[in-house]
Parts: sequence; C-alpha cells; structure tokens
Amino acid sequence: MVDFQLMPTTGAGRRLVALAEDHASDFATRADQHDREGSFPFENVQAMQESKFAAAYVPEELGGLGVESAYDVALGINRLARGCPSTAIAINMHLVVTLGIRRQWLQAKEGGDSQGAALREALLQQVAAGTLITSILGSEAGTDVFHPFVEATACDEGWLLNGRKIFGTLSPVSNIFFVSCRTKSDNGYDGSLAVVPRGTPGMEIKDDWDAMGMRGSGSNDVVFTDCRIPKGSLVGRTPWGVSDAGRLAGQLSGNTGLVAAFLGIAETARDAIVELVKSRRKGGPEGPTLAANPSIQTTIAQIEVDLSACRAMFERTARSAEAYLAERREEEYDMRELHEFMKSFQCMKWFVNRKAIEIVDRALTASGGAGYLSKSQLSRLYRDVRAGPFMQPWSPNEAFEYIGRVALGLEPAAAN
Amino acid sequence: MVDFQLMPTTGAGRRLVALAEDHASDFATRADQHDREGSFPFENVQAMQESKFAAAYVPEELGGLGVESAYDVALGINRLARGCPSTAIAINMHLVVTLGIRRQWLQAKEGGDSQGAALREALLQQVAAGTLITSILGSEAGTDVFHPFVEATACDEGWLLNGRKIFGTLSPVSNIFFVSCRTKSDNGYDGSLAVVPRGTPGMEIKDDWDAMGMRGSGSNDVVFTDCRIPKGSLVGRTPWGVSDAGRLAGQLSGNTGLVAAFLGIAETARDAIVELVKSRRKGGPEGPTLAANPSIQTTIAQIEVDLSACRAMFERTARSAEAYLAERREEEYDMRELHEFMKSFQCMKWFVNRKAIEIVDRALTASGGAGYLSKSQLSRLYRDVRAGPFMQPWSPNEAFEYIGRVALGLEPAAAN
Amino acid sequence: MVDFQLMPTTGAGRRLVALAEDHASDFATRADQHDREGSFPFENVQAMQESKFAAAYVPEELGGLGVESAYDVALGINRLARGCPSTAIAINMHLVVTLGIRRQWLQAKEGGDSQGAALREALLQQVAAGTLITSILGSEAGTDVFHPFVEATACDEGWLLNGRKIFGTLSPVSNIFFVSCRTKSDNGYDGSLAVVPRGTPGMEIKDDWDAMGMRGSGSNDVVFTDCRIPKGSLVGRTPWGVSDAGRLAGQLSGNTGLVAAFLGIAETARDAIVELVKSRRKGGPEGPTLAANPSIQTTIAQIEVDLSACRAMFERTARSAEAYLAERREEEYDMRELHEFMKSFQCMKWFVNRKAIEIVDRALTASGGAGYLSKSQLSRLYRDVRAGPFMQPWSPNEAFEYIGRVALGLEPAAAN
Amino acid sequence: MVDFQLMPTTGAGRRLVALAEDHASDFATRADQHDREGSFPFENVQAMQESKFAAAYVPEELGGLGVESAYDVALGINRLARGCPSTAIAINMHLVVTLGIRRQWLQAKEGGDSQGAALREALLQQVAAGTLITSILGSEAGTDVFHPFVEATACDEGWLLNGRKIFGTLSPVSNIFFVSCRTKSDNGYDGSLAVVPRGTPGMEIKDDWDAMGMRGSGSNDVVFTDCRIPKGSLVGRTPWGVSDAGRLAGQLSGNTGLVAAFLGIAETARDAIVELVKSRRKGGPEGPTLAANPSIQTTIAQIEVDLSACRAMFERTARSAEAYLAERREEEYDMRELHEFMKSFQCMKWFVNRKAIEIVDRALTASGGAGYLSKSQLSRLYRDVRAGPFMQPWSPNEAFEYIGRVALGLEPAAAN
Repeated sequence: MVDFQLMPTTGAGRRLVALAEDHASDFATRADQHDREGSFPFENVQAMQESKFAAAYVPEELGGLGVESAYDVALGINRLARGCPSTAIAINMHLVVTLGIRRQWLQAKEGGDSQGAALREALLQQVAAGTLITSILGSEAGTDVFHPFVEATACDEGWLLNGRKIFGTLSPVSNIFFVSCRTKSDNGYDGSLAVVPRGTPGMEIKDDWDAMGMRGSGSNDVVFTDCRIPKGSLVGRTPWGVSDAGRLAGQLSGNTGLVAAFLGIAETARDAIVELVKSRRKGGPEGPTLAANPSIQTTIAQIEVDLSACRAMFERTARSAEAYLAERREEEYDMRELHEFMKSFQCMKWFVNRKAIEIVDRALTASGGAGYLSKSQLSRLYRDVRAGPFMQPWSPNEAFEYIGRVALGLEPAAAN
Repeated sequence: MVDFQLMPTTGAGRRLVALAEDHASDFATRADQHDREGSFPFENVQAMQESKFAAAYVPEELGGLGVESAYDVALGINRLARGCPSTAIAINMHLVVTLGIRRQWLQAKEGGDSQGAALREALLQQVAAGTLITSILGSEAGTDVFHPFVEATACDEGWLLNGRKIFGTLSPVSNIFFVSCRTKSDNGYDGSLAVVPRGTPGMEIKDDWDAMGMRGSGSNDVVFTDCRIPKGSLVGRTPWGVSDAGRLAGQLSGNTGLVAAFLGIAETARDAIVELVKSRRKGGPEGPTLAANPSIQTTIAQIEVDLSACRAMFERTARSAEAYLAERREEEYDMRELHEFMKSFQCMKWFVNRKAIEIVDRALTASGGAGYLSKSQLSRLYRDVRAGPFMQPWSPNEAFEYIGRVALGLEPAAAN
Repeated sequence: MVDFQLMPTTGAGRRLVALAEDHASDFATRADQHDREGSFPFENVQAMQESKFAAAYVPEELGGLGVESAYDVALGINRLARGCPSTAIAINMHLVVTLGIRRQWLQAKEGGDSQGAALREALLQQVAAGTLITSILGSEAGTDVFHPFVEATACDEGWLLNGRKIFGTLSPVSNIFFVSCRTKSDNGYDGSLAVVPRGTPGMEIKDDWDAMGMRGSGSNDVVFTDCRIPKGSLVGRTPWGVSDAGRLAGQLSGNTGLVAAFLGIAETARDAIVELVKSRRKGGPEGPTLAANPSIQTTIAQIEVDLSACRAMFERTARSAEAYLAERREEEYDMRELHEFMKSFQCMKWFVNRKAIEIVDRALTASGGAGYLSKSQLSRLYRDVRAGPFMQPWSPNEAFEYIGRVALGLEPAAAN
Repeated sequence: MVDFQLMPTTGAGRRLVALAEDHASDFATRADQHDREGSFPFENVQAMQESKFAAAYVPEELGGLGVESAYDVALGINRLARGCPSTAIAINMHLVVTLGIRRQWLQAKEGGDSQGAALREALLQQVAAGTLITSILGSEAGTDVFHPFVEATACDEGWLLNGRKIFGTLSPVSNIFFVSCRTKSDNGYDGSLAVVPRGTPGMEIKDDWDAMGMRGSGSNDVVFTDCRIPKGSLVGRTPWGVSDAGRLAGQLSGNTGLVAAFLGIAETARDAIVELVKSRRKGGPEGPTLAANPSIQTTIAQIEVDLSACRAMFERTARSAEAYLAERREEEYDMRELHEFMKSFQCMKWFVNRKAIEIVDRALTASGGAGYLSKSQLSRLYRDVRAGPFMQPWSPNEAFEYIGRVALGLEPAAAN
C-alpha cells in the first residue's frame, strides 16, 4: 500500500515516531473522556515520561532518545495528535524547551563554557530521569507575545514578578516555568525570561482552563503576585517588543510541532470519514454504501487534495528551515534570512491550520449529521482543530501583514 | 440609525417579532447554561405558551396571534435565535405543524367539510390555550426523509408502529407527534403519517440528545415498539419515496423558520464581535482598540458582505415562495414550478447556512482567541451554527444534485 | 415557467426593460466582432438614441421615456449587458449624467430657480432629441477618484485645464464631458467639475483603449493641454479629497447600473453553459449529455446558488437605497446614513462582481475546454466580467477597509 | 537572499534549468507579440533545437543533454514558462515523447532486443541533431482521451486513418505525430497508436488555433481523411477505454511538465505584482508606494501562501512518483499503486492549476486596474493560466470523481 504520510528522516526519529504511534493508540481510548470532563491527561504524560518520549531531545549518553531533528520530533507530535490532540500540544511545550536546553548545552561545550555545559547537562539528565517537565508562559490578555506585561521589579534578594499569563498549556504538571516578562529600563522596558520552579510562593496555577476544544491541554492561567525569584533566575535581556535571531530561530524549530499536531487531527478526521462512508449504507443493509454517492466522493476528493497540500507544505517548509539552521551557528544567522524563513513558516502555519479546519468540516458534512453527535470523534476533532490559528505567533489577525511586509521587503516590525 | 435587518410584512407579524425580541432578551440569559448542561429549556417553552408566541398561527378569533405570513413567523424565529438558538429551532417544529393545521382548517371550511373544520378548529383552540404542543418526527438513521423505515402494520384495532426516529426536536414537551412511516402495499410500500399522542404505550421518548451544539433542543431519539394507534390515526397515503405538491409546499413554508434561526446566530455573532473589537484594547488601557487594526477591519467587512448577502437571499427567496403559494389553491400547484421554488429554497438554505458558519468563524478569528473560551458566547455559537446544513431536506450531500438537476430540467428524484 | 430574474418596478421601467431586451438581441449579434476588433459600437449607440433608450430618464413631456426609478434603469442596463457588456457600461455613463440633470431640473423648478430649470430643461430636450450624449471623466493614474490631479488654473477668460484622465468610457461619441478636477486654494486644493464640450481645443480624445475585455467600451484616455473653458464651465466647489452628501447619493444611484451590467454577464454565461451541457453528448450521438454527469450538475448548482444570491443582494440593496433617497430632499441627507447605504452598496458591488467572475469561471469549467476557444462566447465573457471589481469607487484594494470602518463606527475617510 | 523556488536534483538537470532560464529571458521579449498575433513561436523552437534543450532526454553519448530526471525536465519547462507559456507547453509535447523513446531504448537494450534498440537509438540521434520533433494527438471533441474515435481500418497495404483530433499542440512544426486511435475488434474496439510523419497524404494540419490564451501554442486541429499508413505504423494494442500501467506511468512522468508550466506563470505574476506595487506611488511622486497599503500587503501575503503551497505540493508529488517509477521495472508496476500515485498527481494538478489561476487573479486585483490593460503582461498571464485545468487527464469535471473513488478503494474506471 502506498502511503503518503510524512516520515521521519533519522534513525532516532523513526524510533520516536514508532513510539508515538504506540502512545497514540493508547491515548485515543481516553481522548473523548478527557474532552468531556475537561480533565488533564496526567496518565498520558506519565506514560511519556516512562517511555522516554518526553526525553526525545536528550542525548542518548545522558539517558534520552537522542533525536536531533526537530522535524522528526514534530512528526512524533503529529502521531500523538492522532490519538489525543490535547496531549500532543501539551507535551510539545516541554519538548520545545528541552530542544533549547540541548542547543545551549552544545554551544557551551563547544565554547569551552564548562560551567554552563554542566548546568545544562544536569537539566537534561533530570529530563531523562522523567522528573523534570518544563513549560513556557508567553501569552497574556491585551498584548502580543513580544510585549509581555508581566513585570519583574528588582528587590533585595532578586526579583518580584507580578502579572498574569494565559494559555499556560501543560501547567498542571510542569516542574519549571519559563516566563516571558519585562523589566523597567532607562527609556522604557527590556524583555527578559524568568525561570520559576513549581511551588514558588506567589505563583498560582489556576485550574481554570475551559474552552471549546483542546480541553485536556491544561492551558490554565498562571498568576504572579509578588512572586520572588533569585537574581540569577532572570535570564536573557533584549529590547522589549523586538524579536532577535535566537528567538526567531527558536520559534522556527519549536512551533513546528504545534502545526504538526493540527495536521494529525486532519489525518484522523480523514481516516474516520473514509471508514464511515465505506461502512454505512443507505436504504437498509442491502443499500449502497455512502461511498457510492458521487457527492460524497467529491467531498472525500477535496479532503485528499487539501491533506496532500498540507503534508507537502509542512514537509518542505519545516525541512528547509531545519537545514538552514543546522548549517549555521547562531551568530551567523542573518535577520533578513530568518524573516524569510519565518514568512515561509507563517504561510505554512496559516495554510495547514486553515486547511485542517476545512478537512474536519468536510468530514462532518460527509457524515450527514452523524459526526455532529457528541459520541462521534468528529465532533471533538471539529472543536479541537479550531484552536490551531490561535497558536502564537501569529494569529491570522497579524500573520498576513507580517507575510506581506516581508515579501515586499518592508520592515516586518509594523505588525507589533 | 439605518438598520438592514429583516422586517416583518404584516401588522400581526410586527407584533409577533416584537414579542420574539422580548423573549430573546430573556432567553439569552440562560442560553449558555442550557448549553453547558445539555438541558431542555422548559421555562422558555412555557413562556412562549403564556405569551401566545406558540399560537402565532392560530387565528385571533380562536385565541391566537393571527399571523398569516410564514415569512413573518420565520422572522420571529430569527429573533428568538438571537437569544437562544436551541429554543428557536425547537418551537419551530411546533409552529410548522400549526401552520399546516390552519391551512387544512381553512380548506375544510372553504370546501364545506364542517366535520374536518371543526376538528381542526378544536386543535387550534387547544394550541391557543397553550396546552397542546406538537412535533414532527421525520429523520431516521440510514435513510432519507422520503423513505421512512418506521413501519405501521395493520392489527385488530388499528396499527402497530415499529421503528426508531432520530432528531426528535421538541420531544421533551410535545403532546402530539406526527410520525412519518410506511405501510406495506401490493408492490412495495406506501408512505403515511401517524399521529401519536404523548404517553401512548409503546412510544418511548429517550433522553439521549447529546450533540456538539444546539444542546437545548431536546432532539431525542423516539422509539416505537408495537406502539398501537387507532385506525384513524394514520393519515395521508402517498407513494413511498416520492414527494408530492402538498409536501413540497409545506417544506417551502415550514423550513424557512429553520434557516432564519441560523441567520439569527450569525447576526448575534456579528454584533458580539463588533462590540468586542470596539472595546478591547491592545497594549494597555492607552492602546488602540482592536478595531483600529486593518486586518480586523477587513474581517469585519467580510462578515458585513456575507451577512448582507444572507439577509437579501433569505428575504427574496422566502417572500417569492410565499407569494406563489398564497396566490394558488393547493390543487393548482404545478410540480415543476414547486421544484423551481424548492431549488431556489435549497440554494438559499445552503448559502445562508454556510455563510452563517463562516460569519461565526470569522468572528472567532477576529476575537484572537478570546472567543474560543467556553465563557465566550462565540464558542457556543460556533457549535450551534454548524447544525444548519444538516437540517432536512437536503443536507449538502444531496442538495447540489437536486439543484443541478432541476436547473438542467432533469428529473429531480434521482437524489432519493 | 417560474422566472427569478430581476423585474422593473414601474410601468415606464417595464417598457424600458422590454426595449433593452430588444436592443440586446440585436447587439448580441455583433458583440464578438467588436471584441475581436476592439471597435466601438457606434451603431448600437445610434440605435439607442433612436429608440430613446438613451433618453430613459428624460421626462415624457420633454420627449423621453420618463423612467424615474434608477433601479429600473439599472435593469435596462442589465438586459443590455446580456447582449453586449461593452455597450451597456458605455451608455450607463451617459444615463448617470442625465439622472443628475433631471434631479437638478426638478430641484430648480421646486426652488423657483427658473433660469436653472430652463437650462436643464433645454439639456434634457437635447438628450431626448438624441443629439446629446454626455460622459464622466473621473479616473486618473496614481490617485483615487476623490483626489483628481487634473487641474484648472484661472486665466483671463476662464480656466485652463491640464492633466490626463483614463478610463474615459463612451468618449468616442460623447458630446459633453464632465471632468473632475482641482483648483488651487489658500491651503491646498478645492475639488471641482469642469464641463467641456467635444471639440474644445486642448482636449484630445485618444483612441487608445486596449484591454483584456470590455473592448468595445471606448474607455480612452483623454488629455487636457491648456484646454481653455469659460468661467461658468467650472461648477461645484468642495474640499478636495472629501466626499459630500450629493456625491455619495449620486454614486448610490448611478453606479448601480454598472453592477447590473456584470450581473447580466453572469446570467448570459449561466444560460450559455446550461444550453451547452444539455446539448453536448459524450461518447457519440447515442451517449449521455454532459448534463447527466453529477460533477457537471454540481457545477451548475453552484452557479445557481451564486446567481440567486447576486440577484437578491442587488435587488435588496439597490431598492432600499432608492427608497431612502426618494423619501428625502438632498439637504435632509445624513452623512452617517449615506455611508451606511454606501457600505451596503459596496458589500453588494464586491459580492456581485466577484460572484459574477466565479459564475463565468464555473461555466468555463463545465464547458470542458470548449469555452476557452475564441469562438465561444464564454471566452469573451470571462474577460469582460473581470473588469467589474475595478469600477470606481471602490476597487477591492480599498473597499474592505471602507466597509469595515463604517461598520465599526470609525471615520471612513481613512481609505483615501 | 533566501530563494524558495524549486531546484533541479541532478547535474544535468541543473544545466538544463540554467539553459531554460536563458531561453526564457529571450522568449519573454516576444511573448506578448505572439499572443497578440496568435502566431506560433517558430524562432523559439529553433533556438531550443540549436541549444539542445529539445534533446534534453537524449543521452549525452547520442548527442543530447542526458537529463534523466523527469522532475528536472519539468523544472526546465517551469523556467521556460516564466518567459513564454505557449512555448513551454508546446515543447513539453515533444519532450514527453522523447522520454518514452529513451525508456523503450533502455528496455530494448536491457532485454537484448538489438533491432528495437537500434531503431530507438536512431530516433534519439535524430532528435539530438535537431531535425526531429514529435507530438501527441490525444484529444477529440465529444469523448475523453481513453476513448478515441479516430479509427484505423485495415486496407491492402496497411491502415486508413479517419477522424479529427483537437488541441494538437506543437503541430505547426512537428515532424512525427503519435495519434491515439481505435480499431474494430470482435466485440467492440481496441485502442492503438498510429505513427504518422508530417506530410503523409490524408493528414491535414489546420491553422485554426484561436483561443483566449496560450495563443502561441499552435494547438491546431488535425484531420485524417483516408490517411494511409504502413502496417507497422500502428503500435500498441490495448482494450479501448481502459488505461494500463504503462500509460499511467507515462502520464505521471510526462504531464508533470504541463503543471510546472502553470506554476511558472504564477511565479511570473507574483514577481510582476511585487515589482509593480513597490514602484507605483499613490498621490504623486511623494506619495507612499502601493506596497504600504495594508490591503495590498494582505493580497501579496495570500499570493505567498498559495505559491508556497503550490511549490511544495509539486515537489513532493512529482519527486515521490519519480522515485517510485525509478525503483521498478515496468512489469513490476502495480495498478493499484499507480492509481494511488495518479490520485496524488491529480490532487496536485488540480491544486496547482487552480491556485495558479487565483494567484494571477490576486495580482490583477492588487494592480488596481493597470493589469487589465493589454499592455500589461498580467492581462496575458490571466488568460494563459486559465488553460491549466483543461489539460488532460483529467479536467475538473472528472478529476474529483477519480480522486474520490481511488481514495475510497472503489474502481476508478467509473469516470470514463
């Protein structure tokens, strides 16, 4: 049987994807229940800690799976999402961070920074041991990810954090949080990143995630009220509201997995509707299957076209960005080129997310009403898949201006 | 202020629409709760019994509101749906039936059939008294509305009904059910209609409606197991699988209200998102409103275009069909002409339902994520509005073939 | 046979539309030839002068057809366009102007301005005599219609006009040109209108119209080089770049005919493709017609949906604007309300023009290649219909911002 | 500068693409003229004979360029089309045939068929010498490519051909024609292929190609009237109306170039509009460029999204098919698998052709009217690009049924 699904590019990647497929079969059995209850899939995360899926990026010598390709890891997320989309986007938050830590570890080793290397090595070993899970807090109400309002103000022993983050995916189990924030500077603000361990007084993880879909992702609000962290826990320092090469590069690698998850939803919907129309009959047990209806065939064909386009665009965009990043050291990145790749990524992100929504919608149409019922997986997928375009950066409200301006050689920052 | 919403065409219609707007304000306060709980809005139905909204079609001399225009009643449904879509489509099931009863009453009177007239008059008075609510059971799994599998077999004192209906909207409170069914004939089946009062042994109204949206519509399964009804309770007799003029005419009038409900959802979503982007600011209390973003303006403009098209198409289609039907007696109907109007209706139904989905989707986009949260009305509207295309007849799986064949002068029956 | 085409609303309108249908039958025989040669249809214009179609708006007592409804005249244009789109949009330029003259005549009479009334009355009588044809020159390269660059500078005996107009539709036969221009003022410019008779020295009507479609519309460039006109030939004076109530009202009435022309193209394409697929067979003379192909049926159905939507939207929008304008005197117009109607008109204009393009495109698809050949009328319609969205104001590059801003209660002028 | 255009995969391919880019620069200078005149670009074909571009597939040892990858040759066509689309699709007809001859040459050599090998070798050498150009005649009015009506009837010295072919692209210069035809068999027809040299009595090449676009492709009708060919000139014998593995494989390789041509049109339109909006200003020489308009930026962004999707889908689909075919001998082909690849190809063909049309349409929109003028390249591209979906097999009237049926595991033949 010819199979056009996306395939990993490395040996370690192939093992990861096989593992993801096993997990997905298991997670699928509970996905509807977590959706109904709005409950976080603690047991899924635990299974991925035990299987080392959560240590995908950790080198083998440090106890992980040693996957080096972000593309391959994204395909692991893709497979997970076929079973449980909420779990897939939740664990992606963790994997993105571990990718960054591994990168810093390699750079520190290469640059002779033994202390920095040791620190990252210890972190990666903890991840391998399954005890550490990290999460990113970027979004806030009323602003974009480049202009955090959460503020760190200097105090005697370090910093006091105040503010509120939203969409804190994976927060129910995360041990460490990376919190984008700002600090006052002479003429405005600087942007920074606060590292906050779970349980730090002043950080409250709400249990308030309640959305139309992705109900198991634990994307709670996290509130900081005079949350005190040590001086060294504030890392990085960039002009507020401005992206830099490292950040752009990180988004290119890290956010790929998110798009892969929504592609996985579309793939599941496609398989489900093909199965449904091939088995359901009209006019009784002797009647023709729904598949014999030319209108249904056309709907399936439209799904095929879009799915085929999504896979191709995902593959070409993600792999070309990965190749570009792999061939250069961070200091060699060219902002203009990174924006070209980010433009390309934004084209792909919008296209795949939008087409994934359309694919599920068409599946619903072909189901003739059956897919609208809560007992149908399609009714969950229809709600889950709608989250895709909101994933940052950029939402459709900003993406087109960004893409257009880069294509026209204009300063992309206007979108901010 | 210029207002482009659809307006009723008669005095009684204007009173009905004003009443509907009052109801909608009230129903809106509980719509989210019924959605969350999947509960039937008993109190809403009771309010409409008391206000006589449920007796819209009952002549004033029999105690009703005396609305004669199905177009105006559809606008009443439109307004209700702005408050609570589930309630709107539920009560529409009842109104459709009362429209038919009034028509038969007028025909009986005109034709000198005093017994038939008296029977209908009594029914209409009961409706006016608020004690009678009726419902239609047409849909079944695995077949279309023209080929019911529910079967009536002759027995000593009448008929035994067996089979299962789905999508029994309004069933939690309906006092009488009109059940489409079939009876064996010499060379196959005849189609017929069984009238079954609530509480008849052998009819079980399930409490199993659980869908992605329209969660308050009480669209339960209704199961018939040797359900015995008197000989006279089986009315009408047509070839099975074939539509006739009366039925086509009934669908033209009756289903208009259903489309109007989905238009109402779109209107609410439009108002909600305009309000949201005019009040939310980006970058803090001093920042610009979201409305200042050209991308948001474009999204709002697309909503305006589609909403404007929906309203115009609804008005022209519904009013031209109403005029055609009003100018003729039932025996003057021409099947070819009725199919032309039904083609036009199907174009409108598909267009409005689809555009309503797109309008809510665009509103969600413009909300930038806020609308995805359960606490936002938009997240409910997004689910409710998706039910539109499944309303019978036809779902999109059949509608295009029907429209195309009528337009091409081919026999429309092929879709069956 | 049920017919859903748009119908005129007055007796005079019905006569005009019947006349237009006669003209269209005739014009259709030469439309392809004018297209091929890029030649102006002088004989069509002459026929409309003789039949008094060109005097549609001239009161009967002054020798015209006495049509008062701009909606009805737009339907006349709609019918003409079914035969020859180029002729339809060309004569519309003339009709728009005569509508304005009649309006001014009525206002002058009502206001007791006997001199003004006499002047307009003479003009209208000339129009009725068929000797006078007028045209508007609004568009220029590099600016929008609200900011003309053509400039009138005061000279001894009047004004000198300099600049270049484009898209001078009807210019090959127009006797008088209304030229939007600007004059220097203390702090910038004022907007004005110059009335220039054909043959005025310094006005050169190029013979350079050569476009993809609408090749018979004579939309030449018109160049002004020290073109001297008398003092009184510069009429009106408004702030440059700003619309006013009279202008908005004029556009609401006058541009309706342009949209109606593109609707007419879509209607012709629809009829042509239905005819084609019903007569062509596949697989030899015994084979089925193309109409039997479910895919073709679906394409025809999509055309039906869109055509139905276009007609409804055109009718509702144009008639509600006409009613609003008819009920008020010019000084009672409210700018905010006019913008609401213009927003509604822009929604309709964009929708109808875009859907008309799609309808012709679908017809081409259903033709299976036959429609791509030059000998097929469809290949001309495909090119003609694409002109629609460029008609001013607004092109799609500005329309969405305008619509969105009005809908959001923001100052609409930002689009300029 | 990051460049996302498609790149060849082999050394010979890179040389071919570079050559194509040179040709394209030259051809571009005459493309509008050939379009205007509807003239065949004889000089372009001659240039490609001289440069050996026309001998792309001929092995180097036989005097050609030795390109082995059909994907790379398709990219050569893609580059040509950026200069002159008509020339690109014309020469593709020739290249498709030479690809087949080379394949047969290799198989004959491998299979020890020295006579067959020598015959093909001579043909290839002739192609290398630039003296031989071949063409395929497949399309006819009233039937699809699998059911030719052109018939070969046995006569004394061979066969008599009768019938009429349409869309005979490249026919003005082709030296040999491959003509799909049928012969009577016991129970119906067999399908076959007639090889007819230019100048054979009874074969008339009309000079009648006159279409909306692709006006330089020489796609004339070719009429056969008792055209006598020797016995051996009828090659192949398959059931009429049925595809076989060899034919499917040939279409997968050969038709790729056609799609690449339409991608090239889209790329040219994209570059042209970006250039235009960056250089044109609004409001005079001091005014902002059109590129500063957010609405224009959005339109450009939509072009970027679609172009990016087209390129990715083309690359993935064409390369995966090429890899599949390269890894197998013809007798190892599996019909089911070939249909899967053909389904994938059809998804890609439809998507790229449709999106290419949309890209040019958006470019026209962004041009604000300038692109509608004949002097703008965009007005030609708009007409040229519309030919894409009609390229066989399949037109959109059949493609969706084919794709749907293969995806659903049904017999694909039903489309015939």
